[in-house]
Amino acid sequence: MSVRYFPVLSWARSYTAHQLTDDLLASVIVMVMLVPQSLAYAMLAGLPPEMGLYASILPLVAYTFFGTSRALSVGPVAVISLMTAAAISGLGLTDPAQVVAAAMTLALMSGLFLVLMGVLRLGFLANFLSHPVVAGFITASGVLIALGQLPAILGLSASGHNLPELVHALGSAFVLAWPDLNVPTVTIGVATLVYLFWARGNLAPLLRRAGMSDRGAVIVARLSPILAVVASGLAAWYFDLGERGLALVGEVPAGLPVPGLPSFSSIPWASLAGPALLIAILGFVESVSVAQGLAARKRQRIDPDQELIGLGASNLAAGFSGGFPVAGGFARSVVNFDAGAATPAAGLFAAILIAAATFVLMPLLAWLPKATLAATIIVAVWSLVDISIVSKAWRYSRADFLAVTATIVLTLLIGVETGVAAGIIVSVLVHLYKSSRPHVAIVGQIPGTEHFRNVVRHQVITHPHILSLRVDESLYFANTRYLEDLIYKEVSERSDLQHVILMCSAVNEIDLSALESLEAINRRLGDLGIKLHFSEVKGPVMDALQRSHLLRDLSGQVYLSQHLAVQDLV
Amino acid sequence: MSVRYFPVLSWARSYTAHQLTDDLLASVIVMVMLVPQSLAYAMLAGLPPEMGLYASILPLVAYTFFGTSRALSVGPVAVISLMTAAAISGLGLTDPAQVVAAAMTLALMSGLFLVLMGVLRLGFLANFLSHPVVAGFITASGVLIALGQLPAILGLSASGHNLPELVHALGSAFVLAWPDLNVPTVTIGVATLVYLFWARGNLAPLLRRAGMSDRGAVIVARLSPILAVVASGLAAWYFDLGERGLALVGEVPAGLPVPGLPSFSSIPWASLAGPALLIAILGFVESVSVAQGLAARKRQRIDPDQELIGLGASNLAAGFSGGFPVAGGFARSVVNFDAGAATPAAGLFAAILIAAATFVLMPLLAWLPKATLAATIIVAVWSLVDISIVSKAWRYSRADFLAVTATIVLTLLIGVETGVAAGIIVSVLVHLYKSSRPHVAIVGQIPGTEHFRNVVRHQVITHPHILSLRVDESLYFANTRYLEDLIYKEVSERSDLQHVILMCSAVNEIDLSALESLEAINRRLGDLGIKLHFSEVKGPVMDALQRSHLLRDLSGQVYLSQHLAVQDLV
Repeated sequence: MSVRYFPVLSWARSYTAHQLTDDLLASVIVMVMLVPQSLAYAMLAGLPPEMGLYASILPLVAYTFFGTSRALSVGPVAVISLMTAAAISGLGLTDPAQVVAAAMTLALMSGLFLVLMGVLRLGFLANFLSHPVVAGFITASGVLIALGQLPAILGLSASGHNLPELVHALGSAFVLAWPDLNVPTVTIGVATLVYLFWARGNLAPLLRRAGMSDRGAVIVARLSPILAVVASGLAAWYFDLGERGLALVGEVPAGLPVPGLPSFSSIPWASLAGPALLIAILGFVESVSVAQGLAARKRQRIDPDQELIGLGASNLAAGFSGGFPVAGGFARSVVNFDAGAATPAAGLFAAILIAAATFVLMPLLAWLPKATLAATIIVAVWSLVDISIVSKAWRYSRADFLAVTATIVLTLLIGVETGVAAGIIVSVLVHLYKSSRPHVAIVGQIPGTEHFRNVVRHQVITHPHILSLRVDESLYFANTRYLEDLIYKEVSERSDLQHVILMCSAVNEIDLSALESLEAINRRLGDLGIKLHFSEVKGPVMDALQRSHLLRDLSGQVYLSQHLAVQDLV
Repeated sequence: MSVRYFPVLSWARSYTAHQLTDDLLASVIVMVMLVPQSLAYAMLAGLPPEMGLYASILPLVAYTFFGTSRALSVGPVAVISLMTAAAISGLGLTDPAQVVAAAMTLALMSGLFLVLMGVLRLGFLANFLSHPVVAGFITASGVLIALGQLPAILGLSASGHNLPELVHALGSAFVLAWPDLNVPTVTIGVATLVYLFWARGNLAPLLRRAGMSDRGAVIVARLSPILAVVASGLAAWYFDLGERGLALVGEVPAGLPVPGLPSFSSIPWASLAGPALLIAILGFVESVSVAQGLAARKRQRIDPDQELIGLGASNLAAGFSGGFPVAGGFARSVVNFDAGAATPAAGLFAAILIAAATFVLMPLLAWLPKATLAATIIVAVWSLVDISIVSKAWRYSRADFLAVTATIVLTLLIGVETGVAAGIIVSVLVHLYKSSRPHVAIVGQIPGTEHFRNVVRHQVITHPHILSLRVDESLYFANTRYLEDLIYKEVSERSDLQHVILMCSAVNEIDLSALESLEAINRRLGDLGIKLHFSEVKGPVMDALQRSHLLRDLSGQVYLSQHLAVQDLV
């Protein structure tokens, strides 16, 4: 057993009593936060509430053994729950047992993809989800999630997977119900919403003024949803509001899930592969960025490839124990960190506490109003909505703006899967497009230095019989024809030309297509009596060229630096 | 009317009698070559022979008006015909009229895609078909085409779209028929094959020894198929071999096609979109590389974006006049060029001659043996098969080798569409993978120069409190996390470090993801008391950075050159 594959070994062998105390305290706090969140996100995913609790037990245990972050708290999260809802509703299942089996299968498949990517060291694939695309996607998802919870707060029945569907369903339901909205539902929903929004900004300062420590005040403020849950549950029980039309969570099966596989046979698992892959990648990107941020604060490091295994194990565990796809949640990881979690054992303890709570709380949960859960979801996701990425991208680069806008617009108008897929595709296409028309500068010497810069931007020395071109891109199949065209054009405009120097300081690769183009350029310039030279060719590129005939057939020479080339040819 | 969009204006207004003579002579030669080729490629595409002739009339006229190459000869070509066969057989049509309509629709859709790409200036998309992938694809297609014609030569009935299917069908048919192979068919097929292979290598030298000019000998040798066609047709007629089991072309409708649209309603045109796009891109890449090669010999230029329009117009014309997808053919364009075609008018004259021939020859074509056509196809495509690209790629770069091998293997094992799509996808993925783990060199000063190179490859001067890193790649979403990891690793290994200089001579772009990473790096290094500097930042990158907060918050400075940076900080 090596630490590399079982990160648990890196801390468990030297576990101290002091760490135990820290971890226990953090686990209690995380448990208090996780129970209402788990119920709410199961509801968001369109699943029975107990699945949220199941998804917060074994996955935490699995992460304890295989994860490398000391603070990441794994469980149901908002965006992944929304994607789960979209994936499952796409199957058109009607039998509730099938819906449960589909959610478990989705978790298993996501877990499998994550473990596979980890074993094959394919973590780099996650890099293709760029920062702005992730930010745009989360913002758009937040809007969809918040809107999707409005019906529960207003006591209406309306659903949809994108903005037009939601607005239409909500509008029709509202017109139909108005003015007979259910008063207990609206009262509890709106009151919870107002309380939670107020608590977000004002509870911590209030507690601090009341003498609580900074850290304590922040943690208690983060736990404010538990007060809403308890208060609204008590109200529902005391006034028997269920009889007066308030939607309650209702009876849930007591006890823990029996680990086992879902019945694959009845669900079209092949059509879950695409969503499972997107969930795996997005969950990984989110978890790693949370974990990296927290690790850096304590000068610790995480291993992204091992995180794939850890997160994969968590999802497999979720799939085996009646849960649905999980990831590292931002808010709850921060709470775990702030509460002083010293090792991943905090997660293990939280899992045990949640399992205990599942026994004890199940009968009480029946009285919990759905409107309360909806309000906690809205407030939680509202902090994810941040439209500033759009203006930042607009100012900085049109390409990033295009990718962000495509992601946001398509997520809102069509749905989460299309949105995130579009973000990836647009980013990659824009990158390919840009590198297919590289920036090429004609350069000259800055007087008194050995430095060569763009003739357009700097006062430089040039010579009529030498053309120095700096290509600002690797030469590869996508831009080789562009380069050929450009060189012939520049050459045709210069009658005294005897030497063309390609300054390769920015050329990081020359692939076979580009090699064949350079051979053609060398041949054609040779026919015109012009010599082709290279300067500042990097080591790896030179190694590759030495395996070809180009250097042997080259009419000119290869110089170490542009300065030496011009010195020699002038 | 501008020359830009009607290239015909660039030569038609100054057309001379001398050019007319040249063009007329070339057109006669092209016509003689094109008639048997057109019939053969229609057979290869699984279509009635007259469609080959139709595809060689109006498309030539359209290219005359919209094309920019003075030598390119447009018409049915081998690889595109094979792709047409694959696309249409994928529809599972049984009614011959529907097959004809589907072929016309395919031509129309390819034409539409080409014109659209031309109007939207999307010619750069064709760049993603790299040289090695095209070479590998054509080689594999050549093998499939040649094998697919063997049954016609042996008088068997067998077909397939990939190597396993073909080998199996051919083997079974052979075992079944042997030893009762049809003697006239095998005799004519094998005799034609032997004659054509002999003529390829030996006819031109023979004619030259007999006193013919070099150019004349080459042209007559290229026309050798016409002799086989005439001789085998005469033999079939004289000995009435059709009665003895020789498969003949048979009755074809006399006269010209009536221009008109195919009946879309009966064919699943949506499933033709993918094949049409692949045919459009491949036909364009092929045509442009032929046209560019021939133009360079006369110091002429072609306009690739206008070529999209020209080729698109040709395919639209083919679709409107009972033809199938066309492209610029290599062999026949070279013959056109060698025969002295001065302007695209040669194509117009060839079209008129083929139209006339269609009237005159149709009754005679009934006697033409299919085995003869099959033999001309085999000999024509055999020159396309060139496996040397595999060894060249293996020697030069593993990435290109991977792309070529994937293309060849998948084309052979699965089919043309999968093969060419795999080639494109593998090329792009490999490129993205490589640029996601950029080469980063620690650099030092070469003594006595202002030049900085890799410490591993050169004898250089370094300083313990300065770390100079040269990143050999643009910084963008795919590699930004890699860079962050690498910098933190290098920094953690150096206790005396005070300055990190990022030498950006090879950084051609910094996108928003990378900008956010650099901001994080700057912040974290700042926390450790280490300053971050940049050197040799290029103009366009600097412009972008100036639109962000990075430069304002930077702990260090931006230096014009690495030399100035080290001079200042040492």
